[in-house]
Amino acid sequence: MNAVEAAARAGEAFATYRHESGKTKALFLRRIAENLEANGEAIVAAANEETSLPLPRLHSELGRTTGQLRLFAELVEDGSWVDARIDRANPNRKPPKPDLRSMLRPIGAVAVFGASNFPLAFSVAGGDTASALAAGCPVVVKAHPAHLRTSALAAAAIASAVPEGVFAMIEGVEEGIALVQQPAIKAVGFTGSRRGGQAIMDAAAKRPDPIPVYAEMGSINPVFILPGAMRERGATIATGLQASVTVGVGQFCTNPGLVVTSSHSAFIDELQQRIAATTPAPMLTPGICDAYRAGVERLAATRGVRTLARVDAASGAALFTTDARTFLGDETLMDEVFGPSTIVVECEPSSLLGVARRLEGQLTVTIHGTDDDLVAHRELIDILETKAGRIVFNGFPTGVEVSDAIVHGGPWPATSDGRSSSVGTRAIERWVRAVCWQDCPEAILPEELR
Amino acid sequence: MNAVEAAARAGEAFATYRHESGKTKALFLRRIAENLEANGEAIVAAANEETSLPLPRLHSELGRTTGQLRLFAELVEDGSWVDARIDRANPNRKPPKPDLRSMLRPIGAVAVFGASNFPLAFSVAGGDTASALAAGCPVVVKAHPAHLRTSALAAAAIASAVPEGVFAMIEGVEEGIALVQQPAIKAVGFTGSRRGGQAIMDAAAKRPDPIPVYAEMGSINPVFILPGAMRERGATIATGLQASVTVGVGQFCTNPGLVVTSSHSAFIDELQQRIAATTPAPMLTPGICDAYRAGVERLAATRGVRTLARVDAASGAALFTTDARTFLGDETLMDEVFGPSTIVVECEPSSLLGVARRLEGQLTVTIHGTDDDLVAHRELIDILETKAGRIVFNGFPTGVEVSDAIVHGGPWPATSDGRSSSVGTRAIERWVRAVCWQDCPEAILPEELR
Repeated sequence: MNAVEAAARAGEAFATYRHESGKTKALFLRRIAENLEANGEAIVAAANEETSLPLPRLHSELGRTTGQLRLFAELVEDGSWVDARIDRANPNRKPPKPDLRSMLRPIGAVAVFGASNFPLAFSVAGGDTASALAAGCPVVVKAHPAHLRTSALAAAAIASAVPEGVFAMIEGVEEGIALVQQPAIKAVGFTGSRRGGQAIMDAAAKRPDPIPVYAEMGSINPVFILPGAMRERGATIATGLQASVTVGVGQFCTNPGLVVTSSHSAFIDELQQRIAATTPAPMLTPGICDAYRAGVERLAATRGVRTLARVDAASGAALFTTDARTFLGDETLMDEVFGPSTIVVECEPSSLLGVARRLEGQLTVTIHGTDDDLVAHRELIDILETKAGRIVFNGFPTGVEVSDAIVHGGPWPATSDGRSSSVGTRAIERWVRAVCWQDCPEAILPEELR
Repeated sequence: MNAVEAAARAGEAFATYRHESGKTKALFLRRIAENLEANGEAIVAAANEETSLPLPRLHSELGRTTGQLRLFAELVEDGSWVDARIDRANPNRKPPKPDLRSMLRPIGAVAVFGASNFPLAFSVAGGDTASALAAGCPVVVKAHPAHLRTSALAAAAIASAVPEGVFAMIEGVEEGIALVQQPAIKAVGFTGSRRGGQAIMDAAAKRPDPIPVYAEMGSINPVFILPGAMRERGATIATGLQASVTVGVGQFCTNPGLVVTSSHSAFIDELQQRIAATTPAPMLTPGICDAYRAGVERLAATRGVRTLARVDAASGAALFTTDARTFLGDETLMDEVFGPSTIVVECEPSSLLGVARRLEGQLTVTIHGTDDDLVAHRELIDILETKAGRIVFNGFPTGVEVSDAIVHGGPWPATSDGRSSSVGTRAIERWVRAVCWQDCPEAILPEELR
């Protein structure tokens, strides 16, 4: 199916799908999860062949995917997410006060662009699709070219679970842009590169009727290590950091690509040894591996940056170090290198706030600090709050819970819309708008407002 | 003060203002209301001189303005609007589940562009300013040139009620664009023309870090009259419609500029007589009056459009009629004519859905229908729901309540962001983003999440 046809059908399907009850939508979402599980072995095998991701990881990603679908099923079954509000009439007021009732309603058919690094959980049947279907929006997915067979299997699991037209999948970059331009499409979800995200933002902004775009485009997830924590457990932090930098060959959007710390000799020795000892593994695609190698070579060649470790392989882990002055003077040091690489910025206490202020928007920031550290660094924490969607204390940014309180988003350029989350139940809020009924007869009102 | 300085100061003020408690922000908002009331006579007199709006209207607009401020004071005093969410840790899960807590936090300093048609309630101390200050965002207002003295008085009422730097006002079109470009400004509220709104959207999108823009840009607020209602009370509807079209010399964003009906001879006669008998009054500015006259002349000269009434004065009321075929063939008939003018589209039942589908996004749509009409026109109502933020039944769109359930917004081009409302408590949601704290020590958590 092409973009024009898929969008038109989705637009038509919206006319009935938007009226489905929370119970019915929950049924659809659970059916998708069951279908994915029923065909789980084949799906995981296809993803393993297409992405080089190991089987255990893919099995757990499938569990995450079905878990997300069921979380949204529970959310819409409960139904309170629609934020129903009722202001009753007062005919005696002058002028008379009307009856006003409002709630969140689905925005229309939406486009979803699957990610390369989560072929299941952030792809065809991933969080964007689950949250949009839960909101009452038909979905047209543009499949990621790196895992088309996996995508087709996931698409079949969805298509057989929902009414005709409510779901479709298309392929190809040009078809993807055409999809964003279709009048029936009312919002877009995207996970990928900044370049890809910006192309979609441009297409959406140039429509006769611009539409919202939720693009998650990358993040270097800075980790700040404060002096007390460094003294108390520098080596432990180095161990955890190496694991977080290298897990999944560094191919997570929450991968920590920047470390800021004021004193670090024991820490850096430990980290250097551990990064150097990392076993290399294949990356998702040759293109991602090429980009990673180029990024690492760029860092290695940057004036003022020292290479502390570089595992001798295309996708091998890498560790760099520099000082605050170099970091503040070279914006390219904030560019994401997608893969198992990180750079440690050695930073005098007097430069800490300056480095924090210069950071671009991020999905996460992490702070390691003792209680005394944290109290002494309130201003730093305040600045970091304005830079990210999630602030991690004494942990590591990789590993994103799917829950009510999670926020997976952040200010530009981490995402195109820092007000939103693409993970957890807050994600449903991206696909809705508030509508108000004034003096509406009960028979016409949506159930939730009666 | 210029835009650069005002934005920088607002950005600095954000560092402390964002931490003010709901109680403290409520105090500031109530103080602003008290200051406006204390200087009410002078403010209303200045607005009367600058805008030609009559004194009773301005007194009631002042009441609306202080009412809005107090509504937001109550909202932030109550505090539940922050949508606090807590997922508790589970150390026994594998992997261990972290403690996650999230809530809505202020986005940063914001820019507000005052409207011409509400010199108080949608201007310097209007709903955008009140909702942003309530959210925890410092505000820089760009004053509307049509009422600078009124603006200065309102600005003084705010500045003396809030901490240094939390509020500033600037003037001039170029300064306004410069304001949108300042790094410290993180969102924009605007009420005005589509051209003005688009200039601000462009400036915001071209920043190194694009920011959200909430621009309310005009609406023709279609009124659909269904056959049963027309038979039962066509003349009464005509009476109400004339009042709604001409109230405030038609200078409301919810002014009904389009009427769609299938059979209307008694109705149209009544409406024609009433529009023709309307007493003309001066408009807000000579520029608005010129634009109104040009719009009316354009309609009068459009092929297929008949002039049914035109009060002989620059700002006089006007009534036009056309058929569905002409309306569907000429997109300019959907352009807003800001002032007391409306066009009736005579529409066979078979064309009703086609006309509804072709409508652009609106702040409101209105439906007059008996219970039987409404049941028989479910598809029409469904289409209209996708076109507007508020659906009025058997009433008129002018008159916008300030409350919890109100939605004053709508799909493009009524606003730049159809997900939001610029009136009522939902308006605070425009100035926030969700932030999540992971495993954060209690002493560091915001009060609301402890």
